[in-house]
Amino acid sequence: MNLVQAAEDAPPSTLRVGLDIGGTNTDAVVLDERQQVIAQVRISTEPGVEGVLETVREVLSALRSHTDARGFLSIGIGIPGQVDPSGSTVRHALNLGLSDLNLRGVLEAELGVPVSIENDVKAAALGAYALRGSGSETLGYLNLGTGVAAAAVLRGEIWRGASGAAGEIGHASIDPGGPRCACGQRGCIEAFAGGGAVARRWRGAGSGAVHEVFDAAETGDPHARRLRDELAWAVAAAVRLMVLSLDVPVVVLGGGVAGMGPRLLDRVTGELIREADSSPFLRSLRLDERVEMLPPGSQAASWGAALVGRPRT
Amino acid sequence: MNLVQAAEDAPPSTLRVGLDIGGTNTDAVVLDERQQVIAQVRISTEPGVEGVLETVREVLSALRSHTDARGFLSIGIGIPGQVDPSGSTVRHALNLGLSDLNLRGVLEAELGVPVSIENDVKAAALGAYALRGSGSETLGYLNLGTGVAAAAVLRGEIWRGASGAAGEIGHASIDPGGPRCACGQRGCIEAFAGGGAVARRWRGAGSGAVHEVFDAAETGDPHARRLRDELAWAVAAAVRLMVLSLDVPVVVLGGGVAGMGPRLLDRVTGELIREADSSPFLRSLRLDERVEMLPPGSQAASWGAALVGRPRT
Repeated sequence: MNLVQAAEDAPPSTLRVGLDIGGTNTDAVVLDERQQVIAQVRISTEPGVEGVLETVREVLSALRSHTDARGFLSIGIGIPGQVDPSGSTVRHALNLGLSDLNLRGVLEAELGVPVSIENDVKAAALGAYALRGSGSETLGYLNLGTGVAAAAVLRGEIWRGASGAAGEIGHASIDPGGPRCACGQRGCIEAFAGGGAVARRWRGAGSGAVHEVFDAAETGDPHARRLRDELAWAVAAAVRLMVLSLDVPVVVLGGGVAGMGPRLLDRVTGELIREADSSPFLRSLRLDERVEMLPPGSQAASWGAALVGRPRT
Repeated sequence: MNLVQAAEDAPPSTLRVGLDIGGTNTDAVVLDERQQVIAQVRISTEPGVEGVLETVREVLSALRSHTDARGFLSIGIGIPGQVDPSGSTVRHALNLGLSDLNLRGVLEAELGVPVSIENDVKAAALGAYALRGSGSETLGYLNLGTGVAAAAVLRGEIWRGASGAAGEIGHASIDPGGPRCACGQRGCIEAFAGGGAVARRWRGAGSGAVHEVFDAAETGDPHARRLRDELAWAVAAAVRLMVLSLDVPVVVLGGGVAGMGPRLLDRVTGELIREADSSPFLRSLRLDERVEMLPPGSQAASWGAALVGRPRT
């Protein structure tokens, strides 16, 4: 009885947790009320419903021991799949072996803390937005990973669209004679710029294929040069599409493939400048000046997850 | 003195005027407080700064005689050009021979009534949104005229973007080997689906070329069939892009080429259905069910202009 009373008198926690559940690893941060990271952890993700729940429990347990906190104010989760507009249920998270899970319901019942779920790319866009700090209220985020997907923050809020499909520009076709995409179409941006597609086109290599391709291109390998140039061309097309549709003032590149850093960014801006040479219209859009890259080791994805569902301030 | 007194005592006008200034004609409507059209007029547009101002004066004079009203509450103008975010100045209205005109400032000084200016496609999108009445708060509008441009109404408001370029998806390239576009790029959607581009590719015919192409295609002309099929394919691509980027629940087709009605709409939905056949991902988006056409003789453009600058209700 006394213990309960003491707990009720204690001030409520101000700590927000954000988890980015990826196909390989789960990254998590704890933010204090000034949005400073006071703890972080990375563990490998266990697949399947029980695996994902166990991963979340393990992360929270590790974070609690780091923070000495009694509890958390909220938990936000970014997850690669389709999330319903209310932020409860994740569907089609194929990389995690999940098809339909009310992750919010299960975790809230178990933890007694408000939980919000968001698609991982949309959460990362919110993180990129928060990490940039002052400046524009609107931002485009392009995630270059195994696949290619985008998300937009419009006037400070993630834009989800009618069915959560907003930002699927990886499946915009830019060449009717291009390679077949996993989605069934031909010449999708993802079929040129997705890490998975590049790996399949590059001697069947797995992760790290984009690095191998760039290395081989520099030694003069013609196949590698073609893959590299097509990748940069497709990323440039994605940037252009985001500006032509929404006129976002900035497009931030993130995701595993963006870990290539300036080697990739220089190729993309070079392509945008080359294309503007033949088009006064494109020149007027100054696309090359709108592209930025997340800094290496950025925690945009887990940071953004911590902010999901938070009221705007 | 007595006359002024009387005017001050009279209730303020509740009538809103909307003008759609096109390269050929200017359409205008007067809406009452229930948003019903109580007067309309169409006159030919005079080009140049003085011509456009004279056209506006002539329209207002005609509308006043129709409505017997003492004055108007507001005047909204849709104009084909780039309009600054404050709704004052129009730039690059090449079809009208205007390069930089503070249309709002000039007209407000002359008329003593609040004036708002908006890009014509964005105004038409707002009109299409208002004409649809209940339903979604979000809508995509695709204007198929001499050129191709889009606009989106997001949560009841026109989305302009950082520099007013939002919706320029007519200049998204969908085929690197496609025809050269007026903008300098190759294979833009407009290079396949713009009325001007179709006219240039079809024996140099002028306006009405799209009708001629569809007629000739039906008699089996192979060149006409190719142009017709590429037009439908490019319009389908524009619809797909609007959904992939913003996930709008509906895309309304308008503009002169959309005056083709079901002859065009059936080709576009047929193309969307055909493409979905080979892609479960596209199938899940149900693109063919999201496309609508403005009814023939729709006043979406002038109606929307009347609503520009109006506070949301």
